[in-house]
Amino acid sequence: MPATPPSQQPAPHPTGPESPYLRVCRGLPSDRVPVWFMRQAGRSLPEYRAVRRDVGMLESCRRPELVTEITLQPVRRYGVDAAIFFSDIVVPLEAVGLDLDIVAGTGPVIAEPIRTRADLDRLPELHPEQLGHIGEAVRLLVAELGPTPLIGFAGAPFTLASYLVEGGPSRDLLRTKALAHGDPQLWNDLLARLAQISGAFLRAQVQAGASAVQLFDSWVGALSAADYRRLVAPHSAAALAAVADLGVPRTHFGTATGELLADMAAPDGSACVDVLGVDFRIPLDEGARRARAGAGRPVAVQGNLDPALLFAPADVLTEAVRGVLAAGDRTPGHVFNLGHGVPPTADPDVLQRVVDEVHAWVPARRETAQPVG
Amino acid sequence: MPATPPSQQPAPHPTGPESPYLRVCRGLPSDRVPVWFMRQAGRSLPEYRAVRRDVGMLESCRRPELVTEITLQPVRRYGVDAAIFFSDIVVPLEAVGLDLDIVAGTGPVIAEPIRTRADLDRLPELHPEQLGHIGEAVRLLVAELGPTPLIGFAGAPFTLASYLVEGGPSRDLLRTKALAHGDPQLWNDLLARLAQISGAFLRAQVQAGASAVQLFDSWVGALSAADYRRLVAPHSAAALAAVADLGVPRTHFGTATGELLADMAAPDGSACVDVLGVDFRIPLDEGARRARAGAGRPVAVQGNLDPALLFAPADVLTEAVRGVLAAGDRTPGHVFNLGHGVPPTADPDVLQRVVDEVHAWVPARRETAQPVG
Repeated sequence: MPATPPSQQPAPHPTGPESPYLRVCRGLPSDRVPVWFMRQAGRSLPEYRAVRRDVGMLESCRRPELVTEITLQPVRRYGVDAAIFFSDIVVPLEAVGLDLDIVAGTGPVIAEPIRTRADLDRLPELHPEQLGHIGEAVRLLVAELGPTPLIGFAGAPFTLASYLVEGGPSRDLLRTKALAHGDPQLWNDLLARLAQISGAFLRAQVQAGASAVQLFDSWVGALSAADYRRLVAPHSAAALAAVADLGVPRTHFGTATGELLADMAAPDGSACVDVLGVDFRIPLDEGARRARAGAGRPVAVQGNLDPALLFAPADVLTEAVRGVLAAGDRTPGHVFNLGHGVPPTADPDVLQRVVDEVHAWVPARRETAQPVG
Repeated sequence: MPATPPSQQPAPHPTGPESPYLRVCRGLPSDRVPVWFMRQAGRSLPEYRAVRRDVGMLESCRRPELVTEITLQPVRRYGVDAAIFFSDIVVPLEAVGLDLDIVAGTGPVIAEPIRTRADLDRLPELHPEQLGHIGEAVRLLVAELGPTPLIGFAGAPFTLASYLVEGGPSRDLLRTKALAHGDPQLWNDLLARLAQISGAFLRAQVQAGASAVQLFDSWVGALSAADYRRLVAPHSAAALAAVADLGVPRTHFGTATGELLADMAAPDGSACVDVLGVDFRIPLDEGARRARAGAGRPVAVQGNLDPALLFAPADVLTEAVRGVLAAGDRTPGHVFNLGHGVPPTADPDVLQRVVDEVHAWVPARRETAQPVG
């Protein structure tokens, strides 16, 4: 077991070294596999649908008491090993004054898409004082959570840019990629601005008490590795660098990223990712192999049960969960999660069974990940 | 240059050995890189929008004269090296009597999804006599096309199943994958039936005069390689086997298939694919390397310009096209195409520039692919 150097000592959160989630993130052995779910707070929970009944998505993100309640719901219900701050990737874009909405059944819709230099001028930097309600929610949450760590949340520059350029969700990201290839200067300036916004959003959460962060680059799997390295990686690295001095573990996630995992594990070329999220398309241990190849050191992985298995018969699901856990034993550290977000139609009782199955697993002793130096 | 064994001699089509497209498909050297585009016949063409103005999608597929006109439009306009039969992957499902429609802006919608054994009983086998209008359209087309080969078209069993089980297009294919994992017997029976339908649809086109076929498994990239091998590959192999005795080259294509290319190149374990389609996420020569690893022999590849580049400035597009051509020179054989279908918003003049750029390229001499034995 490598000793944790003093600079790596966690901040004095109540969640510190005892949390299985934080231990795995920090490359330490854990006597159980920690588990949480992307979108664990959300439409799959009846208690969520109840509190959201008369409140729009963006409005719910603006109310610290509601954010606290929604974030806590899955922790109470499932006993997961981490809470994830309830928010949306466009919340920091709204905070800087962009006119946008989240339309039920569609997703984020941007009133005036950003496609020109003049458009970019409408996107100012994000300042901490614009995030007072975020800090308040985090402080309320940390007080309520007790020993359970809170993960701070932000969208990565590429995925944010995809919504801004397309004007909303898009399957093919044609305009986004055309801009990236066609006007690299404007593209890089846009992503640099978004990295500042994303980084400031993460930083505000950590400074208010979040114990870890996850950067979501949900749609980056639409790029080749060569394009990712040239057009995206430096900006994701910049967003992650915004919390480098705060000593919290950083997780990086996207879907369909099999070709990108080596670069996503080290978007700065070496050392800014502690945990790499892996979707369900490749085995976890293969994801860990690619992460190590990119980072030049063992990297913990997070994932990767296919959410579709939540709808399979109980015995099939159990076998699949154990398969993920066994693959996780062959990695330098494993945080159990789905390979993508919880589907709105998922049955909470099924998710509970997954949590219990994960917590019953006795993880293998192995070479653990090396924490980011 | 390997000699073509007698059993591999092309059928006596006028398109035979002189066609650059067929030469590359058969593992023979060609003095130019052949090019065609997936969805080259479609909404991007004003002449297509004109003839479709008052005709629904499925109705247009039922009229041999209209199929002929639409299929010919891009050949006339661009001088591409192959025509692709204008149809839709659900056309053979309609031919066996399924109640479905293609809704503009949505895609195929199935009136009663197939999720149970009783549902499967509503899906009979496809018989050649149900495809009289398809044969008629192919015969009209081959007469009009002269030396340009016609590629027959079918959806692969997995992608067809995804529409049938979900009831329409779906981003996550939750029900499809849950059925595949949860009731493998029903799943295998469903895919076996769809392989019969898909294979019969291809066979009817070839017997009427098509010189090649392409099996589209558009959404199969949602699976891991292990699931693909177990749940899908044997059925794709069966669909391709339906035309094995007819001696036409067979192309296999899907998107986000980086992890699957080795298996897609040899879904029967060895030898039923002549050309493997590669999307834009990996370099063509890497795709060829994976195909060779799976098939145990050199395999020609098709692709793989990112359709988003069609919206970039001319010099950026030209550079990207040349990059694809250069990567193609490092493969055992290259059919130029996009990495996915032509977007409806693409400018036909831009596609013309791509065709001209490809035709101006002088391909390198290389070890060519070995035709399927």
